[in-house]
Amino acid sequence: MANEKIPYKIYLTEEEMPKTWYNVRADMKNKPAPLVNPGTLQPMKAEELAPVFCDELIKQELDNDTRYYPIPEEILSFYKMYRPSPLVRAYCLEEKLQTPAKIYYKFEGNNTSGSHKLNSAIAQANYAKKQGLRGVTTETGAGQWGTALSMACAYLGLDLKVFMVKVSYEQKPFRREVMRTYGASVTPSPSDTTNVGRKILAEHPDTTGSLGCAISEAVEVAVSNPGYRYVLGSVLNQVLLHQSVIGCETKIALDKYGITPDIIIGCAGGGSNLGGLISPFMGEKLRGEKDYRIIAVEPASCPSFTRGVYAYDFCDTGMVCPMAKMYTMGSGFIPSANHAGGLRYHGMSPVLSQLYHDGYMEAVSVEQTKVFEAAEYFARTEGILPAPESSHAIRVAIDEALKCKETGEEKTIVFGLTGTGYFDLVAYQKFNDGLMTDSIPTDEELAAYRQTLPPQPKF
Amino acid sequence: MANEKIPYKIYLTEEEMPKTWYNVRADMKNKPAPLVNPGTLQPMKAEELAPVFCDELIKQELDNDTRYYPIPEEILSFYKMYRPSPLVRAYCLEEKLQTPAKIYYKFEGNNTSGSHKLNSAIAQANYAKKQGLRGVTTETGAGQWGTALSMACAYLGLDLKVFMVKVSYEQKPFRREVMRTYGASVTPSPSDTTNVGRKILAEHPDTTGSLGCAISEAVEVAVSNPGYRYVLGSVLNQVLLHQSVIGCETKIALDKYGITPDIIIGCAGGGSNLGGLISPFMGEKLRGEKDYRIIAVEPASCPSFTRGVYAYDFCDTGMVCPMAKMYTMGSGFIPSANHAGGLRYHGMSPVLSQLYHDGYMEAVSVEQTKVFEAAEYFARTEGILPAPESSHAIRVAIDEALKCKETGEEKTIVFGLTGTGYFDLVAYQKFNDGLMTDSIPTDEELAAYRQTLPPQPKF
Repeated sequence: MANEKIPYKIYLTEEEMPKTWYNVRADMKNKPAPLVNPGTLQPMKAEELAPVFCDELIKQELDNDTRYYPIPEEILSFYKMYRPSPLVRAYCLEEKLQTPAKIYYKFEGNNTSGSHKLNSAIAQANYAKKQGLRGVTTETGAGQWGTALSMACAYLGLDLKVFMVKVSYEQKPFRREVMRTYGASVTPSPSDTTNVGRKILAEHPDTTGSLGCAISEAVEVAVSNPGYRYVLGSVLNQVLLHQSVIGCETKIALDKYGITPDIIIGCAGGGSNLGGLISPFMGEKLRGEKDYRIIAVEPASCPSFTRGVYAYDFCDTGMVCPMAKMYTMGSGFIPSANHAGGLRYHGMSPVLSQLYHDGYMEAVSVEQTKVFEAAEYFARTEGILPAPESSHAIRVAIDEALKCKETGEEKTIVFGLTGTGYFDLVAYQKFNDGLMTDSIPTDEELAAYRQTLPPQPKF
Repeated sequence: MANEKIPYKIYLTEEEMPKTWYNVRADMKNKPAPLVNPGTLQPMKAEELAPVFCDELIKQELDNDTRYYPIPEEILSFYKMYRPSPLVRAYCLEEKLQTPAKIYYKFEGNNTSGSHKLNSAIAQANYAKKQGLRGVTTETGAGQWGTALSMACAYLGLDLKVFMVKVSYEQKPFRREVMRTYGASVTPSPSDTTNVGRKILAEHPDTTGSLGCAISEAVEVAVSNPGYRYVLGSVLNQVLLHQSVIGCETKIALDKYGITPDIIIGCAGGGSNLGGLISPFMGEKLRGEKDYRIIAVEPASCPSFTRGVYAYDFCDTGMVCPMAKMYTMGSGFIPSANHAGGLRYHGMSPVLSQLYHDGYMEAVSVEQTKVFEAAEYFARTEGILPAPESSHAIRVAIDEALKCKETGEEKTIVFGLTGTGYFDLVAYQKFNDGLMTDSIPTDEELAAYRQTLPPQPKF
């Protein structure tokens, strides 16, 4: 093994653990564009958001100034159950690739919700509990967010109503059962339990649902049931704030061993993992203290950064949510059904969108067969069965390490391994059987979806 | 939280990690009965076992004297990828139960094979590799062993042929796909690829297979293919030796904080987890240095300890394996199909059988609906979705903690949490839907199965 002094897995001690979340917006010169009321096209005020979101979370959502948020004691206490997550030196992968690059991954699948989503789930559930709410509503597609939130709500004794995209509800019955085991009620979306659901069903009786539709249903239930609010597992500023715990731990662990990464890589759907992982590094870059290459990896089938537009768009199908300025494919965008991963959202975190727009990070898109090749290679080498989402980052980390092999450069690569692939075996089976294909939207298709963009606010 | 000084999760440092396996047989006055040749009814010699098992593993199997085995460097190096496993203080569970008991669990599901099986899988694969073999064969039922072994073989570049009980092959396609992703070939058993498989299929064309039948097929393929040997994930002495790493880590972690357990609890199918967890504690008990209550938990539907007999029996259906003296239901025993867990084997580790026979441990059997009640309670409280097997231990740990609540005793309870339940969601769904039932064999049924016991050796 190359460098015996650095352990396979770097775990922080309780003393070394971060006690604050880091709000990258505080260091951004160009702040992310505000959420906008789709009716008035004016920035949303806290009181307009209050029927939908928890009060404390609204504060965090709108706060572009506070640099460090002390993590509340109860959340720190919950984090202790599964954090720190290990920062793993991928010695086996390096050896197999015969690369001079040094590869590290921050493994967030080590808690039994199986992904990084738990970091924000427990935070949001905690604020809902503190506000005296009875419960929360949410949507889930691939199911990682729903699983994490159901664990968090079970722990706090909070009711949880999940709207699960119908196709996932049917194709991923085990995900559904995990959530039920944790005590959540799970409804396939669109459903006949909401106005928006009934409307969509009337227009498209055969629809298999979409994330945007499930969001609309969850919001409707939250605003029409006293004691409920809606919570969301990605895209929002507050989620990136909570997920900054990933990056803060990573930075402390690297600093402990005097390691400076050259390249930081994360998969990007709504941006929760990538935003969390890069936060403190991006902070240094924004303040001009250090430079890093930061790479967002997205699926070629849903390429918001690389082929989308930077514009205000709806966050949901029913258009009940605030509008956000972000890289988007248009809210009507539906990725090909053969797309396996959970990175299907048409939009992208407004924070990351602004940072990308301002040139602080790169983005690449990768095809899913290449992603699963990397996933299998990684599984066999590092012994972890990765989630398809995470495998997007693996793909690019391997590609960068292979470039180092060519050039002889000893670059240090850090990537986010967001979760495990236990519930994605249908996709693995397709790949194992040689039946997986790629599907990349044409320019014409993308142009058509862009027609669904709303009128742009002028302020 | 009760005792702030003891962390939620106790992790050993690299220096504190055990460097040896502990062979409990060295401290047993009554050694486990030897394996016997089913033809001659005489103890098997190493040379008779050599066509089936790896040479080094035969030595370990037959060695009742060596107390400590240094863990080979390569295995220590692999262990570093996922060990130490955490010893978790179940603060949340204690609080929810309102018990004065202190509960700890050793969580072996933290590696992505999802169970403790990896500890022996990498050891056995390593010895096969060192012997210059091309590959190994094995059987798998619930699939944890097959998953772990396929990971280990992928890591070492060893070929692996898995015979998977047909009913599991069909009902657990995802387990199958995990093994394929790690590069193993997986054949449903009984198959037409072996003599024993064809014979069984001719007699019982509609059979859904059994562990005993899959073992026979795997052994046949190993002995008839040059460069292959057969490996097994439980029951054998060598497996308990490798799994002693669980108990050794547990003991070092408890000693570090001056904790002495009163009760140690583990689920028992073939005995690999229980035997590993209790080893060093049992050693102290055997040497008269300390006393512990040690409890084996088995399913009421497959109660080898509590309702079986202590006798020589076949280990497989095809009767190609050596016979072992153990608590057994008779090798023809087939547990009810509605039984969910992986604790279906008709027999039990010869080491544990001797210790139980000599009064060094207790055994209880529990019904599966009660087991899943405990599993769900645990999931919601501790945030880990446990495997059904592990949940047998949870059930009894909770029961013992509730007894402490009645008496006010502050007992320290340690139990083994062997793995996660990601691939057992069919069973969880049954439980969630209220469709799970119990099935306990009648005395008459057990008596009938006992008729399948072979003539007993006399030596």
